[in-house]
Amino acid sequence: MAQPSSKKQRTHPQYELLYHPGIPGRGEFIRLALEAAGVPYTDTANEQKDGYSTVQKICMNTGTESADGNPPVFSPPALRVPGAGKDGKSALIISQTPNILFYLGEKIGIAPEDEASKYHVQQLALTALDLNNEVHDSHHPIAVMLYYEDQKEESLKKAKDIRESRIPKFLSYFSRTLQHNEKTGGGQGKYLVGDSLTYADTTVWQVLDGCMFAFPKEMQARKSEFPDLFGAFYEGVKEHKGLKEYLSSERRLAYSMGVFRHYPELDRQ
Amino acid sequence: MAQPSSKKQRTHPQYELLYHPGIPGRGEFIRLALEAAGVPYTDTANEQKDGYSTVQKICMNTGTESADGNPPVFSPPALRVPGAGKDGKSALIISQTPNILFYLGEKIGIAPEDEASKYHVQQLALTALDLNNEVHDSHHPIAVMLYYEDQKEESLKKAKDIRESRIPKFLSYFSRTLQHNEKTGGGQGKYLVGDSLTYADTTVWQVLDGCMFAFPKEMQARKSEFPDLFGAFYEGVKEHKGLKEYLSSERRLAYSMGVFRHYPELDRQ
Repeated sequence: MAQPSSKKQRTHPQYELLYHPGIPGRGEFIRLALEAAGVPYTDTANEQKDGYSTVQKICMNTGTESADGNPPVFSPPALRVPGAGKDGKSALIISQTPNILFYLGEKIGIAPEDEASKYHVQQLALTALDLNNEVHDSHHPIAVMLYYEDQKEESLKKAKDIRESRIPKFLSYFSRTLQHNEKTGGGQGKYLVGDSLTYADTTVWQVLDGCMFAFPKEMQARKSEFPDLFGAFYEGVKEHKGLKEYLSSERRLAYSMGVFRHYPELDRQ
Repeated sequence: MAQPSSKKQRTHPQYELLYHPGIPGRGEFIRLALEAAGVPYTDTANEQKDGYSTVQKICMNTGTESADGNPPVFSPPALRVPGAGKDGKSALIISQTPNILFYLGEKIGIAPEDEASKYHVQQLALTALDLNNEVHDSHHPIAVMLYYEDQKEESLKKAKDIRESRIPKFLSYFSRTLQHNEKTGGGQGKYLVGDSLTYADTTVWQVLDGCMFAFPKEMQARKSEFPDLFGAFYEGVKEHKGLKEYLSSERRLAYSMGVFRHYPELDRQ
């Protein structure tokens, strides 16, 4: 992991993750980044009494302000950073998963400092988050507010396309990125960019892991096509110092009815 | 518009936009940012002989490199920046629309320099691009590689949800952001963040404009709900110095069979 470049950066504010309780969801990408960096944070909805009402008040209101003088938030997740507001005293609230990751990348040492690599890490995270959105649509192709059961026919078609066309296209891209890094002397097949763990690794890893939960047969069948991705990369991230303890802790929430859902009928038959 | 902070920043490399020819698509968000800043660029596929084969070679190959030693690209658009590569000599290639916008925001004076505003601009752009993706899915809810005609039944359902639930949710967020800026002393109803044009404005504007093309009846009916957005904001961006000439030029491509398509049956009836 890149070392923070100054003493100042080593003292972190008490970051607060504002997200729905009980599911990994998009909040998980933020959790993994913070856990990997060993930086303490508060998972407000899961840890605080009435925490979800705080999340709702800040991220799901329909007013012209989120909180602390910050502009509105479209939807969770958001990150609350005490003392980082515009006036230098109140809290900064930022939202959109890739935006939060970019911000944290600069603060907690999970992104490289050179410009080309910094934007490459964000490019990978954005692409993994695109796949995350597509997987969500495999069980909600018509409307996010309808039940799966009310769009099951369409889900069967959508999931087929995602499994047969989209997942291999994304896996190929991630796999070729690993190979490029290794060919140019970095990563040893364990990291996507450079020689240390970045939020590109944790984000791609989470989407891989989620797909294994949602589509176990499909992913099992793809293993031999992308041995590097399922092997040194996937297994390596799990063993990373900051993540190993987290992944076996109670803080790591089980997949259930969030983005990654296991409906056997949507998997490879 | 924020002024570039040093003389160095005023000398720009010859930016090259790598995108599909003949459609505005996701490339348009990059074009608008560059045009608004008055920074020259090459629209490779539309301006160069065999330009699209360059785009295909760099952004749509299945190898372990895009070009100039850069890692693979998942799909267009990408930005080629001569002289900005890792070795300080070759070109840097970066992809993912919001990533390119963030990068340009730091280089060409279309993003604020203070941290809170910089991430707020990116938050807005990411959210507008999410709506852009949802609108794409209104005519391709099942599979990007199938014809619209082969997923028309599903499109009728999907478009209904996008018009009735999603578009108003996004418009409300953009409108409340305008109001927040004005309430805290900025923007005069013309800018989403601060007192000058940013890529948040151009990106939200393009999605609004595209929705007006795709769903003219729906958007007409929404005007009275969001008078600020359709009024001072939408009209103001069109009149911006750098954009007015562009929007009436031949460089501004007509909507056709890209993200924004006008199928009357998908509009409000």
